[in-house]
Amino acid sequence: MMEFILTESELNEDNTAWNGNRFLMGNGYFGIRGTLEEYTKKQMCAVNMAGIYDKMGNSWRESVNAPNPLYTYIKVNGKIYALPDEKPKFHQQELDFRYGIHSRVTHWQTEHGNITVVCERFASIARQHNIAMKYTFSVDFDCEAEIITGIDGDVWDINGPHFVKMKIGSKDGADYVTGMTGEKNISVTVKEYIRTDFQAEQTNQNTDKSIFRHIKFSAKAEKEYIIEKIAEITTSVDDFGTSGSIDELNYSDLVAEHKVEWDKIWDISEIHIDGDDEAEYSLNYSIYHLNCIAPRNMKGKSIPARGLSGQVYKGAVFWDTEMFMIDYYIHTAPEVAKTLLQYRIDTLSGAKIKAKEYGLDGAYYAWESQEGGYEGCSDYNVTDVFTNRPMRTYFRDKQYHVSAAIVYGLMKYINASGDYDILNNGAMEMVIECAKFYRSLLIRKADSSLYEIHDVVGPDEYHERVNNNAYTNRMAKFVFDTVLELSDKYPLDNKLKEMLQDSSKNILIKKPNENGVIEQFDGYFKLEDVSVETVRSRLINPKEYWGGAYGVASNTQVIKQADIVAMLSMFKNDYTKDIMETNLKYYEPRTEHGSSLSACMYSLLACYTNNPEIAYPMFMKSAKTDLTKGGKEWLGLIYIGGTHPASAGGAWIAAVKGFAGINEEHGQLVCRPNLPEKWNGMNFKLIYKGKWYSVEIKDDKGTISMI
Amino acid sequence: MMEFILTESELNEDNTAWNGNRFLMGNGYFGIRGTLEEYTKKQMCAVNMAGIYDKMGNSWRESVNAPNPLYTYIKVNGKIYALPDEKPKFHQQELDFRYGIHSRVTHWQTEHGNITVVCERFASIARQHNIAMKYTFSVDFDCEAEIITGIDGDVWDINGPHFVKMKIGSKDGADYVTGMTGEKNISVTVKEYIRTDFQAEQTNQNTDKSIFRHIKFSAKAEKEYIIEKIAEITTSVDDFGTSGSIDELNYSDLVAEHKVEWDKIWDISEIHIDGDDEAEYSLNYSIYHLNCIAPRNMKGKSIPARGLSGQVYKGAVFWDTEMFMIDYYIHTAPEVAKTLLQYRIDTLSGAKIKAKEYGLDGAYYAWESQEGGYEGCSDYNVTDVFTNRPMRTYFRDKQYHVSAAIVYGLMKYINASGDYDILNNGAMEMVIECAKFYRSLLIRKADSSLYEIHDVVGPDEYHERVNNNAYTNRMAKFVFDTVLELSDKYPLDNKLKEMLQDSSKNILIKKPNENGVIEQFDGYFKLEDVSVETVRSRLINPKEYWGGAYGVASNTQVIKQADIVAMLSMFKNDYTKDIMETNLKYYEPRTEHGSSLSACMYSLLACYTNNPEIAYPMFMKSAKTDLTKGGKEWLGLIYIGGTHPASAGGAWIAAVKGFAGINEEHGQLVCRPNLPEKWNGMNFKLIYKGKWYSVEIKDDKGTISMI
Repeated sequence: MMEFILTESELNEDNTAWNGNRFLMGNGYFGIRGTLEEYTKKQMCAVNMAGIYDKMGNSWRESVNAPNPLYTYIKVNGKIYALPDEKPKFHQQELDFRYGIHSRVTHWQTEHGNITVVCERFASIARQHNIAMKYTFSVDFDCEAEIITGIDGDVWDINGPHFVKMKIGSKDGADYVTGMTGEKNISVTVKEYIRTDFQAEQTNQNTDKSIFRHIKFSAKAEKEYIIEKIAEITTSVDDFGTSGSIDELNYSDLVAEHKVEWDKIWDISEIHIDGDDEAEYSLNYSIYHLNCIAPRNMKGKSIPARGLSGQVYKGAVFWDTEMFMIDYYIHTAPEVAKTLLQYRIDTLSGAKIKAKEYGLDGAYYAWESQEGGYEGCSDYNVTDVFTNRPMRTYFRDKQYHVSAAIVYGLMKYINASGDYDILNNGAMEMVIECAKFYRSLLIRKADSSLYEIHDVVGPDEYHERVNNNAYTNRMAKFVFDTVLELSDKYPLDNKLKEMLQDSSKNILIKKPNENGVIEQFDGYFKLEDVSVETVRSRLINPKEYWGGAYGVASNTQVIKQADIVAMLSMFKNDYTKDIMETNLKYYEPRTEHGSSLSACMYSLLACYTNNPEIAYPMFMKSAKTDLTKGGKEWLGLIYIGGTHPASAGGAWIAAVKGFAGINEEHGQLVCRPNLPEKWNGMNFKLIYKGKWYSVEIKDDKGTISMI
Repeated sequence: MMEFILTESELNEDNTAWNGNRFLMGNGYFGIRGTLEEYTKKQMCAVNMAGIYDKMGNSWRESVNAPNPLYTYIKVNGKIYALPDEKPKFHQQELDFRYGIHSRVTHWQTEHGNITVVCERFASIARQHNIAMKYTFSVDFDCEAEIITGIDGDVWDINGPHFVKMKIGSKDGADYVTGMTGEKNISVTVKEYIRTDFQAEQTNQNTDKSIFRHIKFSAKAEKEYIIEKIAEITTSVDDFGTSGSIDELNYSDLVAEHKVEWDKIWDISEIHIDGDDEAEYSLNYSIYHLNCIAPRNMKGKSIPARGLSGQVYKGAVFWDTEMFMIDYYIHTAPEVAKTLLQYRIDTLSGAKIKAKEYGLDGAYYAWESQEGGYEGCSDYNVTDVFTNRPMRTYFRDKQYHVSAAIVYGLMKYINASGDYDILNNGAMEMVIECAKFYRSLLIRKADSSLYEIHDVVGPDEYHERVNNNAYTNRMAKFVFDTVLELSDKYPLDNKLKEMLQDSSKNILIKKPNENGVIEQFDGYFKLEDVSVETVRSRLINPKEYWGGAYGVASNTQVIKQADIVAMLSMFKNDYTKDIMETNLKYYEPRTEHGSSLSACMYSLLACYTNNPEIAYPMFMKSAKTDLTKGGKEWLGLIYIGGTHPASAGGAWIAAVKGFAGINEEHGQLVCRPNLPEKWNGMNFKLIYKGKWYSVEIKDDKGTISMI
């Protein structure tokens, strides 16, 4: 078992947001940003709650951040020692991502001697309501010390404040802060129990939003003063059990059971790569994130596009989940995959409302889905850098492919799990409603027999309002065909069946042109054919949006992300390797990879066409997305930073389905590896149709054995 | 007979462009901007040729300006006296728009005495190749004088230079400059004969592009020194006779025959308004412009949107001609109306090529039509004021209503002239091709029987890419119905007939909603409903474009110009007066009138609903468009100034069809006046089905008598 440690000893304020993301902890119920204990909302400190949303006035609806029970700083002889203001002699932040344990060590040098703070903390994966922290203070000189610690209810919000009422108090030795959201009166309660192993004078300080304890004591040189905090987060809408009495818990027991749980998870999810430590490290780091945010033990919850790293993208669920993340869960934690799909089944009513809003039939899933399928996406998602005005975008109204992605995710789950029962429990209805939705999008010219879909935004968002996006049309056909295939087991009424047969038969499916290239949408080949670099050189402002009506990419062939390439890798059996390779080579140099969903699809298709060396850098780009400084943090003037679980999931797909070549053929798993030159082998486990397998690859040979 | 004189004695450099437009002369073959004799391209001096175009490199294709034969300035005792640099003691510029004679008087005061320049000039309407000028110089002190005069070939161009070769010389006492265009090798020759009535030393000065004579003499106080210039313009593509020998012509004969011609024109085109001199003056000023630019004696020529005032809008022909100008010619000079329509018949092949370019059938006429139907409009017609980048516009590709406007213009002509013969001479084929074009635009949802037209730009250009623009759909139906109605006389093949019947029957025609308002396009009522003033207040830069994807008007109900209102006034028999009035009142406050095509339509509809007082200010706005300072001169960063013949034509329509209430009912002219309070009466002549009528209105009674 390898150690997986992420370490940072540089203290650069420019990296505060990035560190908050890459040092993230989480347990599916909440995420804790990798900020330091003394940090506040200024440093984007947040305990981000899964699936709890609020809307403040006319602002964007977004997920809610809980009061922060980790808040702690110190005073020595009356002076505050806290980062980033008080520069340390030494500082190191670390994430043991095998166990999701965050730690920090900081030394400050004073005229009298040195101060040391060590802190370790984690979001318990064994008890999902709990956080545990162990804070150790020591000095090498005698002094008057004070540790100020408590629950900071003055939380960081993008479109807040969300707590319109707050209740602060202490009961049975524990302190608590309860916030009540304004829109739906959801309460979020953070309780904490503080245990000290030394004598001190304690006073409580309550503010409007927070509760702090001031723990004063005369510190002796070379002695360690330890504070343990056991916190509990609950909400009024929880769907699973609480943690029990926190005063009966202690750090060492909690950490032990927490590690046991993580060991179980890693036992089935770790991927060993022989010959490439960096790839192994990055891929498992990606898997760590997928494990942190998995909605384990929950009913019908899904994963936001930025995981549990904050309110960016409104904490909403995108197609990312079914397209890029679900594969990992399908093959390592099918109950989590089912929970993700249950979320879509549960939110069918929201999707039907959205379809109706646009005069369409069936289910049009939200582009940015919140609880109940509420569409969190507005008509204005980008701020123009030149005018500071909101720009009308079409993500909400024209990215029709979202419903198909959900059906695609469902079918991946069913095919790999064999769980057809889910169809009886709402999924079949969902698929039918999605099919009706695509049916209602079909139009046909007066004298044509072909159905077309006009005025759409495909996966490549830089080209808005196009006709016959090849990907979207193909996905619509996939949905029609899925219902028809399932209609053996789940009979349809005849009229619907005929409509879907007609739709499937007559929908325009783009074919390769004389050079073997499939046109992304009507007229794409007529656009200016320039390089990504040329397009980039036309930027006036580095933050300006490349897409929209007048973006630098809009009237060129430069695309944001995999579109045709995604289609080819999703329907690889429809195309020859030649066609796949031709399109990969055509589109790759024209792709900015401005979305974290892009590189993994190219990597996968490169593997499918036996080009692992082409696939490799794109796999690494995906696996390292959250490890790499300087990611894309702006959409116009809107901050879009955070973790990238779709990229993490995409890296897993590229590794397992691409390099390892694990695919289903005739209802059987097969392994046809395509390892990059430097990889000597891989091994990992996965579950398929309820049975666990171990995959062992050495050079170009793969073996799958049932465990 | 009233005198119609336009005078300006202020000399304000900010008005140079505006004066160039409002003091315009023309004879249909060319226009001469109302600049002064000493002006050059710096002051936007131009002799703008009708129907001759050239494209320089990648610039926009545009009409060609001829070398300027009027160029003249003076030196006294070696010092130049020329406006605007040498400030005068007195200066007056005048246009006698009864006769299209431009004159100027300028006095300069020097330390020795006063200098006076008087100049009179005109574009001969009797001999359309000729320009005549009479330049009078006098001083009240003896001096050494020099008049420099000649042909200035260094012409003003927006996207030039167009003359890639120039030939300069003198022959038989006349000087000439010939320019040869680069794209199509069209030659434009300007010849001039200069006659002096005094002894002087003459030397010629030839440059690369120009030829000047230096006429030096010792001037005596109080004596008038007169130079007459007789110029001739010809091109290698002329389709009518030349002028004869210019050395045999003289100013007084030319001016006499010119006035006789103008008297004939005014005899049939003047409109008297009793009780409102300002309205009478402005309306006849508008008529003057329509007469200046009418392609008399020509074969298949039309009128550019900016008349012959320059290269703005590429000197191209828009729907303006058939929608707003042709009515005047139909009723005063039907042969001119026929020439305008002949231009469309002749350019059918261009329209078919354009349709094919977009994968459509039939004839899609150019949005900015040049010779042969060449589409002068580019995909980028506006420059973003914030980024200085060209903005992708959809005027070229989505303003489908242009073809229908041509059919509408044709039918107005046929109905009023009775000239069905034109249908045998190409017009029927043209109408059929337009009908095929609209057929190919029809789409229908998979489970609907209605035909729709999606992704269009209607007359209101501020809302791009909308679905089911009510105006466009109604016009498409009009074209289908026109072919079907004509099919009695001009048999169609059965398949086409059935297709058109199906199209006419099933096309979606928008109906009034519960409040009686017709929605301009799908979703218009959902747009932000704010006032024009609110929208204006959101401008950051006064030159920024209101439309496009992100313009201040784009996501509001504020529209640029008549759209529903145009439809209602064009199809007034389809609607009750209540509906017309309701829509007028709904849309008027939401209309910016940012197009000169707008106010007249509102004025007309207000007359149709018996609201002459509402109609009056909009009529005056139209009639005074070119008389009013501060018109809309910018589209983003692109200069769009010039004369506004569609506005002039619209004023005529509002006066004759609106206030005078001249309309056809059951094949008869009727007069149901709706005069504004202050008008006591009107009288004018017009031709209908080959017969001339005199219309006499006193108060609310109108009489039509055959002449």
